[in-house]
Amino acid sequence: MENSWEQSVTYSINTIYLLFSAYLVFVMQLGFAMICAGSVRAKNAMNIMLTNVVDAVVGSISFYLFGFAFAYGNSNPFIGTNLFALVNIPNENYDYGFFLYQWAFAIAVAGITSGSIAERTQFSAYLVFSFFLTGFVYPIVAHWVWSSSGWLSPNSSDLFLGSGSIDFAGSGVVHLVGAIAGLWGSIIEGPRVGRFDAYGKPVPFRGHNAALVVLGTFLLWFGWFGFNPGSFDKILVAYPGTPDEGNWTSIGRTAVTTTLAGSTAGIVTLFGRRLLIGHWDAMDVCNGLLGGFVAITSGCSVVEPWAAILCGFVSAWVLIGLNILALKLNYDDPLEAAQLHGGCGTWGLLFTGLFAKKKFVNQTYNSGVAVERPYGLLLGGGWGLIGAQMVEILVIFVFVSTTMGPMFYALHKLKLLRIPVHDELAGLDISSHGGYAYAPPEENHPRSYEDYLRMQDDQS
Amino acid sequence: MENSWEQSVTYSINTIYLLFSAYLVFVMQLGFAMICAGSVRAKNAMNIMLTNVVDAVVGSISFYLFGFAFAYGNSNPFIGTNLFALVNIPNENYDYGFFLYQWAFAIAVAGITSGSIAERTQFSAYLVFSFFLTGFVYPIVAHWVWSSSGWLSPNSSDLFLGSGSIDFAGSGVVHLVGAIAGLWGSIIEGPRVGRFDAYGKPVPFRGHNAALVVLGTFLLWFGWFGFNPGSFDKILVAYPGTPDEGNWTSIGRTAVTTTLAGSTAGIVTLFGRRLLIGHWDAMDVCNGLLGGFVAITSGCSVVEPWAAILCGFVSAWVLIGLNILALKLNYDDPLEAAQLHGGCGTWGLLFTGLFAKKKFVNQTYNSGVAVERPYGLLLGGGWGLIGAQMVEILVIFVFVSTTMGPMFYALHKLKLLRIPVHDELAGLDISSHGGYAYAPPEENHPRSYEDYLRMQDDQS
Amino acid sequence: MENSWEQSVTYSINTIYLLFSAYLVFVMQLGFAMICAGSVRAKNAMNIMLTNVVDAVVGSISFYLFGFAFAYGNSNPFIGTNLFALVNIPNENYDYGFFLYQWAFAIAVAGITSGSIAERTQFSAYLVFSFFLTGFVYPIVAHWVWSSSGWLSPNSSDLFLGSGSIDFAGSGVVHLVGAIAGLWGSIIEGPRVGRFDAYGKPVPFRGHNAALVVLGTFLLWFGWFGFNPGSFDKILVAYPGTPDEGNWTSIGRTAVTTTLAGSTAGIVTLFGRRLLIGHWDAMDVCNGLLGGFVAITSGCSVVEPWAAILCGFVSAWVLIGLNILALKLNYDDPLEAAQLHGGCGTWGLLFTGLFAKKKFVNQTYNSGVAVERPYGLLLGGGWGLIGAQMVEILVIFVFVSTTMGPMFYALHKLKLLRIPVHDELAGLDISSHGGYAYAPPEENHPRSYEDYLRMQDDQS
Repeated sequence: MENSWEQSVTYSINTIYLLFSAYLVFVMQLGFAMICAGSVRAKNAMNIMLTNVVDAVVGSISFYLFGFAFAYGNSNPFIGTNLFALVNIPNENYDYGFFLYQWAFAIAVAGITSGSIAERTQFSAYLVFSFFLTGFVYPIVAHWVWSSSGWLSPNSSDLFLGSGSIDFAGSGVVHLVGAIAGLWGSIIEGPRVGRFDAYGKPVPFRGHNAALVVLGTFLLWFGWFGFNPGSFDKILVAYPGTPDEGNWTSIGRTAVTTTLAGSTAGIVTLFGRRLLIGHWDAMDVCNGLLGGFVAITSGCSVVEPWAAILCGFVSAWVLIGLNILALKLNYDDPLEAAQLHGGCGTWGLLFTGLFAKKKFVNQTYNSGVAVERPYGLLLGGGWGLIGAQMVEILVIFVFVSTTMGPMFYALHKLKLLRIPVHDELAGLDISSHGGYAYAPPEENHPRSYEDYLRMQDDQS
Repeated sequence: MENSWEQSVTYSINTIYLLFSAYLVFVMQLGFAMICAGSVRAKNAMNIMLTNVVDAVVGSISFYLFGFAFAYGNSNPFIGTNLFALVNIPNENYDYGFFLYQWAFAIAVAGITSGSIAERTQFSAYLVFSFFLTGFVYPIVAHWVWSSSGWLSPNSSDLFLGSGSIDFAGSGVVHLVGAIAGLWGSIIEGPRVGRFDAYGKPVPFRGHNAALVVLGTFLLWFGWFGFNPGSFDKILVAYPGTPDEGNWTSIGRTAVTTTLAGSTAGIVTLFGRRLLIGHWDAMDVCNGLLGGFVAITSGCSVVEPWAAILCGFVSAWVLIGLNILALKLNYDDPLEAAQLHGGCGTWGLLFTGLFAKKKFVNQTYNSGVAVERPYGLLLGGGWGLIGAQMVEILVIFVFVSTTMGPMFYALHKLKLLRIPVHDELAGLDISSHGGYAYAPPEENHPRSYEDYLRMQDDQS
Repeated sequence: MENSWEQSVTYSINTIYLLFSAYLVFVMQLGFAMICAGSVRAKNAMNIMLTNVVDAVVGSISFYLFGFAFAYGNSNPFIGTNLFALVNIPNENYDYGFFLYQWAFAIAVAGITSGSIAERTQFSAYLVFSFFLTGFVYPIVAHWVWSSSGWLSPNSSDLFLGSGSIDFAGSGVVHLVGAIAGLWGSIIEGPRVGRFDAYGKPVPFRGHNAALVVLGTFLLWFGWFGFNPGSFDKILVAYPGTPDEGNWTSIGRTAVTTTLAGSTAGIVTLFGRRLLIGHWDAMDVCNGLLGGFVAITSGCSVVEPWAAILCGFVSAWVLIGLNILALKLNYDDPLEAAQLHGGCGTWGLLFTGLFAKKKFVNQTYNSGVAVERPYGLLLGGGWGLIGAQMVEILVIFVFVSTTMGPMFYALHKLKLLRIPVHDELAGLDISSHGGYAYAPPEENHPRSYEDYLRMQDDQS
């Protein structure tokens, strides 16, 4: 079979768009690695960076073998049952570029979870849960919401509550899934040794390198331009008579709403934390910014820029509030991952149910055809959408809890989850990975060029 | 209204081009953050990284609310007066992608300035000047030169000196503006404590981490591929009968001239500094490289590759010379920002006036239509262009000096600009941001795996 | 001359594709710099980062002046003789974007070599070999294999062994060339002082910063998406009746094979090294991952995903085995560059000869026209291809050995290659570059915010 010139142009443009978006999403894996490394103590830096590398390499194989099939194989509303190991790819629906794009999403999920259980988890336990989460739990949720045969999908032929849930780039499918998994892992493991004193008062555990955190934050921002706008998959839609505002306009708007939500959340966190703790805290701003991105990820394609600002504003307070609550409850999450990805992800799903704009919902999900469907409740769009959003939150919570929870508990009971106390005190790097991430400063070095010249004189 | 297939293809291609270029320009913000962090002392690393994050998040909101309107709203040659808060976007001239691209430029300006005033400025003063510069001063200069209604614009219907100034990607609009602002800030604040001894002799203040500087330099190079070639905005121009060398060729050539100018400047700095100081200095090469990029930014689209090499050659000596002069004058600029962005930016504007090639000027600014307009003086193009370039330098100097100068002076008089001496000695991170960027090395750790095993034996 | 709308669209799409791929390949230079810096001792970090910057800037000029001409100038099968200094560019075959893409490849080669000779080489020797390798040795090999007039090229009108060698993105042309050069450099210089004790037993020399290694590894992965899929040069091929699977599908598949090969190699190295050394080593996984990428680089466009997994599996053991061998032979290569790029590169060329699929070879090299040509031996494609692959390995070994070997030997004899022992002990940074990459921790700083407040009380 041959393609017309028009088809070839369309495929070429959309492949460029999707592949380069996938590359950006992949950069988020590096961003996670750097943030995680910088946020833990130096003695565990090697461990957490290795987990991020492992997420990517193990995820490649498990997502290739069956994860992609579970997520995007067709047939029933609950789990895909074909396309294992990319058999029958490429086909009329999916090309390799789509697989790569989805792979970059899949490997991000375990990275979120690894933050919650950092600095105290056995590496072999990590291998087990990462494989299970990336290859099985995440793909099934993705199938429900993103596959056209999924029961919650807004592209389904049988729309749940007449709407389906709108989780455009995955506040729920990616972030909430990773966060709930991490929440259970962290609860079951308990806090790091020394994190709370005998009276339950938190002892500050500062990350060892803020430059890595800032580096990682900017890289995540960069990657989010692939994550959110890229989720349109296609920039050129090949039906006759594309409306005035084609996908290219929606894509640009999505990049703008993403930027505004993150920025607002960053600013609000800057000033909010200044009021609360008395100084301008860079790490708080980084986390606030990320919280805004997590929140807007669900509705980025269907809300106005002004609404994105509102989204970011609230998400900053969600994160600040949950962090205070976590300390009160002696919940220890070294990366604030459950609070950030879980709390802001949940808010993001609700926000979409409140502020999704009719016109944009139609543009994004009806391919421009004006079908009557629910949109944001506060814009007069009825209860269908917000209802579906709440159902998505609920089923993610239940499904991830009933799969990952028992898995972490079984590892715990088998004494495979947490490292021994003396290993935790010495650090995972020396106990499990053969040495620290940083070489000790070498001794007997000249301190300056003049010293160096003097040392040479002494030798001669 | 509907688009024809041809229009949809055109919009899709140009949106991909502009958005991905915007993402690259955004990476420059990370590049600045890393260079700045590495170039200051460890005790101020958190502070300067936070300022770079704040430039981005505050800039998002101010540029969205009014900066973009001042810059690209139409109506008069001096300041835009519509498009506030993206009202009436998208329209026939501007889509969201264009906003995002310009936003990435706007946030870069304050980053330049922050280098000049690093290690001694109150954070609240930083918030004030960053907001003012990004939201007001920079957009107005951008309006003059880049908006089609701007009085200096080479796309204006009433060309200044029959030419308009050619500042393609902003040697003046971005770099010189940021540099002049920083120059005044640094002069008004004075040098860092201890930077010059009682006899006015400079005391070396080495940056604390060269790896961050090299990381940042490469990221800026990467980002410059969005900054310069991306400034064409469109790669596919939809008029009938595109000439043999369409924008795609000009865009490729722009990437090449950018690379050659920066590389030449890097090499010349390497050897020039070797002759002057006796060793091969990596930090000098990084700054030289960046100086070459700053200089070529104005003319990158309208000069031949051989001319780009000349541009880079001279810019290296401009930077070397101004750095020597700055030390003599006891001017302290921790990032050499005024010398680098100001000096090489000024040279770049003049260089364009001397070497802009007739054919390329017509390709870039006449949409291929052969209108008679001035080009490089030394190529026989007359005084119109170089005259306009000199006027641009002059008006940027005057406008930025008369706006940012008084602002910094007022902050100074109100004792809001500079931190107290003891805070400067202790470092901004501990005095304003709650702690250092790096955790102190933890004690009582095993130094090797063998030590670790021995410690375990001791415990048992 | 004017372009039709169809031509303009085609050029625009392909230019976007090639330029953004070039930008990704450029990022690999940063990746190399970070990996190299992290893998050496702190006292040599500045030196090795400078060499990576110098590769880029010197490479720009030498590749512009003559390297590109030697590689892609037409005329004879052994060396190009026109297109010096980009004269006659753009032409019907090459636009500036192609030059930029090839430039990004050229500068990578010397980066590989610099790893092998790290921590003990005079900087001036580095300048000589880098210029020679990037401007002369590499371009000639590239001409043989990649220029359509090259004697080994699979696009030649006179196919060597009826096949030409298939080295799609350069397992041989880039990686093996750089590795053989480094092998000779490292052998001629000998090991670093203290690397092997009096009994020839290796003394562990740990790199000083694992975070930089992980950062560099992920950046290389990111860049490899430009390196391998980008090597198609064009995504939209403008002949009538593009087959069902156009270049866009091949490009996506290439990104997938690349990912799978690297991931498999990473996993196999993780578990393989765990068995051998008893802990989970993050640095091993990073190197294993890169070895998989190097190996798949030759055949990425012409093999099935399942074969890519096999490719990665074997490459992990090649690297593990060669590293053991290197220690036995007291061969000291601080970055394992000869083992990784040479060993896995050689395996990659053979792998392609064994597993290249008929359909994909025709798609990639026959522009879809079904011509009878050899393909993978084990898939029944005969001895033509594997023969050509073995010849490529052989000629690269011989040519690079006979050019770079004598050059390193001459530098050695002239005492220009290796630094004096006391400089090596003090470190290259202090002896050649004026100071260390990292400032010593400053003394008398407050350790905490409470300390800081106490210090302020003392002052008042």
